[in-house]
Amino acid sequence: MDIKEAAALARKASITLSSADSDLKNHALSMIYDSLINRKDEIFRANNDDIERSLKEGLPDPLIKRLKFDEHKLEDILSGIKSLINLEDPVGKLLAQTELDNGLDLYKVSCPIGVIGIIFESRPDALIQISTLCLKSGNAGLLKGGREAIATNRILFDIIKSASENAGIANGWIHLLETRSDVTEMLKLDDYIDLIIPRGSNEFVKYIMDNSNIPVMGHADGICHCYIDSSADINMAVNIVTDSKTQYVSVCNATETLLVNKDIARDVLPKLKKALDQKHVELVGCDKTREIIDIGTASEQDWKTEYLDYKLSIKVVSDLMEAIEHINTYGSGHTDCIITSDKSNAELFMNLVDSANVFWNCSTRFSDGFRYGFGAEVGISTNKLHARGPVGLDGLQIYKYKLIGHGDVVADYANNIKTFKHIKVK
Amino acid sequence: MDIKEAAALARKASITLSSADSDLKNHALSMIYDSLINRKDEIFRANNDDIERSLKEGLPDPLIKRLKFDEHKLEDILSGIKSLINLEDPVGKLLAQTELDNGLDLYKVSCPIGVIGIIFESRPDALIQISTLCLKSGNAGLLKGGREAIATNRILFDIIKSASENAGIANGWIHLLETRSDVTEMLKLDDYIDLIIPRGSNEFVKYIMDNSNIPVMGHADGICHCYIDSSADINMAVNIVTDSKTQYVSVCNATETLLVNKDIARDVLPKLKKALDQKHVELVGCDKTREIIDIGTASEQDWKTEYLDYKLSIKVVSDLMEAIEHINTYGSGHTDCIITSDKSNAELFMNLVDSANVFWNCSTRFSDGFRYGFGAEVGISTNKLHARGPVGLDGLQIYKYKLIGHGDVVADYANNIKTFKHIKVK
Repeated sequence: MDIKEAAALARKASITLSSADSDLKNHALSMIYDSLINRKDEIFRANNDDIERSLKEGLPDPLIKRLKFDEHKLEDILSGIKSLINLEDPVGKLLAQTELDNGLDLYKVSCPIGVIGIIFESRPDALIQISTLCLKSGNAGLLKGGREAIATNRILFDIIKSASENAGIANGWIHLLETRSDVTEMLKLDDYIDLIIPRGSNEFVKYIMDNSNIPVMGHADGICHCYIDSSADINMAVNIVTDSKTQYVSVCNATETLLVNKDIARDVLPKLKKALDQKHVELVGCDKTREIIDIGTASEQDWKTEYLDYKLSIKVVSDLMEAIEHINTYGSGHTDCIITSDKSNAELFMNLVDSANVFWNCSTRFSDGFRYGFGAEVGISTNKLHARGPVGLDGLQIYKYKLIGHGDVVADYANNIKTFKHIKVK
Repeated sequence: MDIKEAAALARKASITLSSADSDLKNHALSMIYDSLINRKDEIFRANNDDIERSLKEGLPDPLIKRLKFDEHKLEDILSGIKSLINLEDPVGKLLAQTELDNGLDLYKVSCPIGVIGIIFESRPDALIQISTLCLKSGNAGLLKGGREAIATNRILFDIIKSASENAGIANGWIHLLETRSDVTEMLKLDDYIDLIIPRGSNEFVKYIMDNSNIPVMGHADGICHCYIDSSADINMAVNIVTDSKTQYVSVCNATETLLVNKDIARDVLPKLKKALDQKHVELVGCDKTREIIDIGTASEQDWKTEYLDYKLSIKVVSDLMEAIEHINTYGSGHTDCIITSDKSNAELFMNLVDSANVFWNCSTRFSDGFRYGFGAEVGISTNKLHARGPVGLDGLQIYKYKLIGHGDVVADYANNIKTFKHIKVK
C-alpha cells in the first residue's frame, strides 16, 4: 500500500472512528494494554536489535537512552494508558447551545479533527502515547517514528493496530510510515490529511512548515526567558533560574536567556553565577551584566539563540516593560517566567508577554503535558491558532454546528414573517 | 507608511489592545457609534462618488446594491454595534483551571490572536463589522476592502480609527490597505501577522492560501447538499430544498446538489420540479432522476460544481450511507442538510457528514453568523482547525496558560521529593 492509499483509507476510517462511542474506544485501549503485556518479550527483543545496531552506528548516549524500551518504560506506558482510559472522552461535548427560534435549535459539538500525520523522534514510547491519544480523541493517524527505533516501532505498531481493530475500531485508522520519502509523499496529501504535527529539531520543523499546504502544529524554536524583577526573592530567583536552565538542557522549555532588573542585578547576579558555575553553565552577558560579573560577551545573535546546552545569555534591563519588549521581540512564544513578589507586575507580565505559557515564580521546565495533567501530549505548540502550549486530547478536537429544525426556511425571516429569538441555553 | 511598518505598528498595538479592559473597548465602540451618526453626510457623499463611478464603469446591479451605504444600512450597522457592546467580552475567560500541587496553579485563559489581515468584498458595512469585531475581540487588524468602495472605506476607516484611538485604544491598532500590491506585501509578513481571513471568490481564496505562510481561515468552495431521506415529509422537503436553493443563489450556503433516496424519489421529484420551475431553476440529474423527471444530464463535474446560480444537480441514492459518502466525497465541508422524520438517520447523518454545519429539517441558508446569534461574523470557515462554520468573536480568540507558583522547581518532582496532585478545579 502506498502512502496515498494509506491516507485515503485513514480518511475513510476517520469518519467511522469520529463517532465511535467511549466504551468502544476504551475497550480498544484495554486490548492494547493487555497485548503490550502479552507481547512484551517480542518488544524487548526488537528493541535490543535497535539498540545494538545504533551502538554500532555510534549513536550518542542520550539518544540510546531515549531509544531504550525496557520493563520500566513499559510500566510507565501502561500507567499512561490506564489514565487515558479514565480521562473524559473529548468527543461529542456540547460546547454551546442556542435556541434560534421555537423549534430551531443550534448545538456546537466537539468532534475529532480527522486525519493527523505525526512525525516524531526515536523514542518508542512516543509511538504508543501518540497513537493512543489519537484513538481516544477519535482521530486517524499516519505515524512516522525515528529510523533508529524501526524494529521496536514495527512491533508496537502491529500490537496497536491488531488490538484496536480486533476490538472493533475501523480498519486502517492507523498507519506506520518508515522512510523519509514516505514523509515527503505525506506532505502533499492535503486532500486526505488535516494536520501535521512534527516533533524534532528546529530545522526539521521549519522544513515541514515550508513544504506542505497541510496546517502544521508545533514549535520550531524554544527560546524561553526568566525575568528577575526588582522585588524578587533572591534565593527563589537563583533556584528557579538554575532549574529552568539546568534541570534538562536539551529540551524546548529550558531557559536560554535571563533578564535581570537593574535594581536587583548587583545582589542577584554574583549568587546566580556561583550556582550556575557549579552546574558548569557558560554565561554570556550584556555590558551592564559584565560590569557586575566576569563573563563573556553576549551579541545580538545570542538573544535569538536556542542553545539547548549548558549556556545562558544574560541582559540587565531598566524596567519590567523593557523585559516584556525583549521577550516579545526575541522570544519564540513558548514559555517565559517572571520572578517577583509584586502581584501587579506579575499580572502585567503574564498579560503582555505574548507566549503560550507565562509563569510567575516557577521554573519554565513545568510547561509540559504530563506536568499540566493532560495525561500525555502530542507536542507543544507555539501557534497562535487552534491549540497553544502543551497539546493533549482537547487540542485534537474541532467542533461542528448541528442545527435541528422542523421545516424552517430562511425566507420567513428575510420577509419578516418570523424573527429570531437567539436564546442562549448554554 | 509602507505595509511592513503598518504591520509592525499593528503588532505593537496588539499587545496593548490584548489587555484592554471591557469598559475601554465598549467605550471606543460607543465613540465609533456616535461618530458614524455625526459624520453620516460625509459617508453618504463619499458613497455617492463610489456609486457614480461604479455605474460609469458598468458594475452589475447586485454589486451596486452591495456597494450602497445609505440611511437604512447605517441603521443596521448602528444596531449591530449596539449588540456588539452588549455581548460578553471574549478575552480573559477562564477556560480551565488545575491545581498541579499545593500553591502551584495552572490557568487556561482566553486571549486575542494578535494581528489579523482581512480582505473583503466591496461592501462598506463589512469594513465596520469586521473592524468592530476585531476591536471587541482585542485583535489588531489590517483591512483591505474592495476597490469600488474606496471613497466610502476611507471615511469609515477614518471614523473608526479616530474615534477608537481618541477613546484610548492603542495607536495603530487598525490600518487600511488600498491596493493589490499592498495585499501581496501583506501575505509575506508572517513575522507580524497571525492570521489572514480572505472573503471573496473561490479563485481568490485559493490564491491567498497558496501564496502565504500565514495561516488562512475561510472557505474556498461552498458545495452544500440537501438529502431527502425515505421518510421525509414531502411538503417539508420541497419547501426546504426550494429555500436552500433559491432564497439567495449567489452565496456560499445555497444548496448546489440534491440527493434523494430511491424510495421517495417518485413521490418527491415531480413536486420539487414544479416548485423549482416556478423559480426558474435549471435542473440536471443522474440517469435515475431523469427516469422520473424530464431534465438535463448531470456529469461527474456537476457534483463538484458550486453554481452560485439558479441551477441544481440531482442524484438518486440507494440509502443514507450512499448520501453521506457522496457528501464527504464531493462536498466542501460547509453546510449539509438531511430531511427526514427518522431521528436515528438524522443523528447518523449529522455525526458522519464531515462538515462545519450539519442540519436536520431546515434550510442550508441558516448557516450564518447573524442567524446563529453571533452578532456578526468575520466569515465562514471550512477549516478543520481553530474555528469552523460562521466565525464571530470566539473564533478570534486563542488562549494562554498562566502558571503561578511560589518558587517551584521541576527537580523536586523529577527526584520524587514532590508529586503532582492534578486537581481539576475547572
